[in-house]
Amino acid sequence: MKNFADRLDQRVRETGNPSVMGIDPLFEYVPESILNRYRSEVENPMEAAAMAFTEFGYRLMDSVKGIIPVIKPQLAFFELLGDHGIRAFINLVRYARNEGFLVIADAKRGDILSTATAYAKAYLGETQLAQGVRCAAYDADAVTVNPYLGFDGIKPFIDECEAYGKGIFVLVRTSNPSAVDFQDLRTEEGNFIYEKVADKVSNWGETTIGKSGFSSVGAVVGATWPKQARELRKRMSNTIILVPGYGAQGAKGDTAALCFDDHGRGAIVNASRSLMCAYRQTGYSHEDFQEATYREAIRMRDDLRNAIEQKDKMHK
Amino acid sequence: MKNFADRLDQRVRETGNPSVMGIDPLFEYVPESILNRYRSEVENPMEAAAMAFTEFGYRLMDSVKGIIPVIKPQLAFFELLGDHGIRAFINLVRYARNEGFLVIADAKRGDILSTATAYAKAYLGETQLAQGVRCAAYDADAVTVNPYLGFDGIKPFIDECEAYGKGIFVLVRTSNPSAVDFQDLRTEEGNFIYEKVADKVSNWGETTIGKSGFSSVGAVVGATWPKQARELRKRMSNTIILVPGYGAQGAKGDTAALCFDDHGRGAIVNASRSLMCAYRQTGYSHEDFQEATYREAIRMRDDLRNAIEQKDKMHK
Repeated sequence: MKNFADRLDQRVRETGNPSVMGIDPLFEYVPESILNRYRSEVENPMEAAAMAFTEFGYRLMDSVKGIIPVIKPQLAFFELLGDHGIRAFINLVRYARNEGFLVIADAKRGDILSTATAYAKAYLGETQLAQGVRCAAYDADAVTVNPYLGFDGIKPFIDECEAYGKGIFVLVRTSNPSAVDFQDLRTEEGNFIYEKVADKVSNWGETTIGKSGFSSVGAVVGATWPKQARELRKRMSNTIILVPGYGAQGAKGDTAALCFDDHGRGAIVNASRSLMCAYRQTGYSHEDFQEATYREAIRMRDDLRNAIEQKDKMHK
Repeated sequence: MKNFADRLDQRVRETGNPSVMGIDPLFEYVPESILNRYRSEVENPMEAAAMAFTEFGYRLMDSVKGIIPVIKPQLAFFELLGDHGIRAFINLVRYARNEGFLVIADAKRGDILSTATAYAKAYLGETQLAQGVRCAAYDADAVTVNPYLGFDGIKPFIDECEAYGKGIFVLVRTSNPSAVDFQDLRTEEGNFIYEKVADKVSNWGETTIGKSGFSSVGAVVGATWPKQARELRKRMSNTIILVPGYGAQGAKGDTAALCFDDHGRGAIVNASRSLMCAYRQTGYSHEDFQEATYREAIRMRDDLRNAIEQKDKMHK
């Protein structure tokens, strides 16, 4: 089973692009033409919304295939549509992996050992249902996890990473304004909590370092916080940083670039709304949404490439 | 819409029992007779497991109806069965509420504002799917949430609590051994992180205090930590504490009792495995599982009553 960090590193090199397309199925993002079709064809409104979103997701992926290497579906929006939403999530993950995308399930799960084991098996591994009958509920490549419960809530995920060549991204410094509430409390030793989490994440990942030099235990660090991004990049040298906050949340290429190492590696940058809703920019109609997303994907890729290059120049 | 804390307080008084039955659908907990029936009747093994679990859950509730006032299904084990599991979760929540149980969805969700809003609507509120078409995906009475992202990840849940008479329980000090990793870091002011979280939880709940004097923003405090339980009970005087760790995780009535106030109120105590798998105790067969769970529910209720009484005596 190939190491997740190596698989990710390879896909980023092949596409020359560290972008991640976030898939957040708010139905207000879905072009009216798709929504209306399913609304008229399907009786159950939750099922109709889930089916509309599935088509939208497939076509978004078609638009950026070979350009963006990774997608990150956000579970909350699928859960909002109950079992229909989860069915859509399963379909999107399967489609994505068939089309060569890596999939990070953005679930931010965290629980005590026995429960974390169930989440880890659901998102990354398999479950034995009967003698000789195994099932993989979601089979994503990676999942985001919350560190508040400490190591025994993380360990079951690392076990599945090792068994199945999968990965996790642990929340370290999130992109939202209230990240400061607890993550920025200073310990008696003078460290911020997020630094203590970063040190643990770095340490937890040691057994999963691949040939790329990176670990399959990654970190989430919001690009909305340049100072923290710069410090955390140095603090976790073998850790792949998943960077949310680009695009609609306000961060630009230059701040995202701070999460990359001096060789322009070690980070992936997520944008959701700016890619999904690119068709709302001037000059596009609902029917053109694929073209709009394609163009925004190219723009984002080039923006990130330039920003990383500029940063490297400044460094030299 | 009646305040959640008041509804909970009322149900606990009516039953004279602060117990919560955790529903963790590990299929190894399900009596063989039920599992085998669905295995032979239903082709898809995940669907068969989910249906077996649904029947088990219904019958567990039937066994303790009128005795235990609250159930707490754990999402991880439902997610493990994909959309079939989520369908089972939806069915169990609906059945529980029809039968007069309050339902705490143990999901430990936490995310940035827009995503937390989706989770809050999924678990507690409603979503508008089209003009005049609203749906409530899960419609639980309360949900557990993770504080790591700070207030903007919690606020959307509080909004739904206020709009729909629902509640949340925020993780403060969890029951697992690694709770110490981050929750017990000491800040520069000398407080533990879990104390800082407790203070915020207390503060966040102020707008949701009902006639009972309790807030609909509760806290999770593991009964496996007596010292912390005692301190946190004092620190959060209007907060209902959800106490996991009783039974199979090792905590007894006397430690759980520390989470109750001097009037024997303000806490609810969860047991999962000890109730669900009571039939594995000597003297029961698989077919007797309802009788076994009933007896364990009575034993747990009386154990808690005695422990709370003893504690109050010591206090006086």
